[in-house]
Amino acid sequence: MKARVHVMLKAGVLDPQGEAVRHALGALGFDQVGGVRQGKVIDLEVDASSEEAARASVTEMCEKLLANTVIEKYDIEISAA
Amino acid sequence: MKARVHVMLKAGVLDPQGEAVRHALGALGFDQVGGVRQGKVIDLEVDASSEEAARASVTEMCEKLLANTVIEKYDIEISAA
Repeated sequence: MKARVHVMLKAGVLDPQGEAVRHALGALGFDQVGGVRQGKVIDLEVDASSEEAARASVTEMCEKLLANTVIEKYDIEISAA
Repeated sequence: MKARVHVMLKAGVLDPQGEAVRHALGALGFDQVGGVRQGKVIDLEVDASSEEAARASVTEMCEKLLANTVIEKYDIEISAA
């Protein structure tokens, strides 16, 4: 199974990386850009018997390692390999 | 319009971040994980008259700033705000 995890800062948490991108885009003349948020995407190959099993183990990985759940939220997409 | 951009290292380019995540997951007992690739996700609010216009300007942003196209590939999803 393939899993794609998005880890983004929660709404309300200051995102200096996103702000830096927004400023840089503005300096390049892209004035049509409003808010920018930057996060991480992690693609994993997971050996699991079912989509539910894969989702359960990836959720545990997120809680234990991939996301800092105090300030970050994550979402998980599972697809057959 | 909302745009979501994924920037990933091209296949064949060594991904030390992904490797570090894979090792850390293994050390936590997640032996079912094969390859791991880590990239960036950038969410933008773009002021554009149509989906095509938004996609064109975000493509230009990727080429000029968001991705290093020598080693990274990007893909763009546009959705109505």
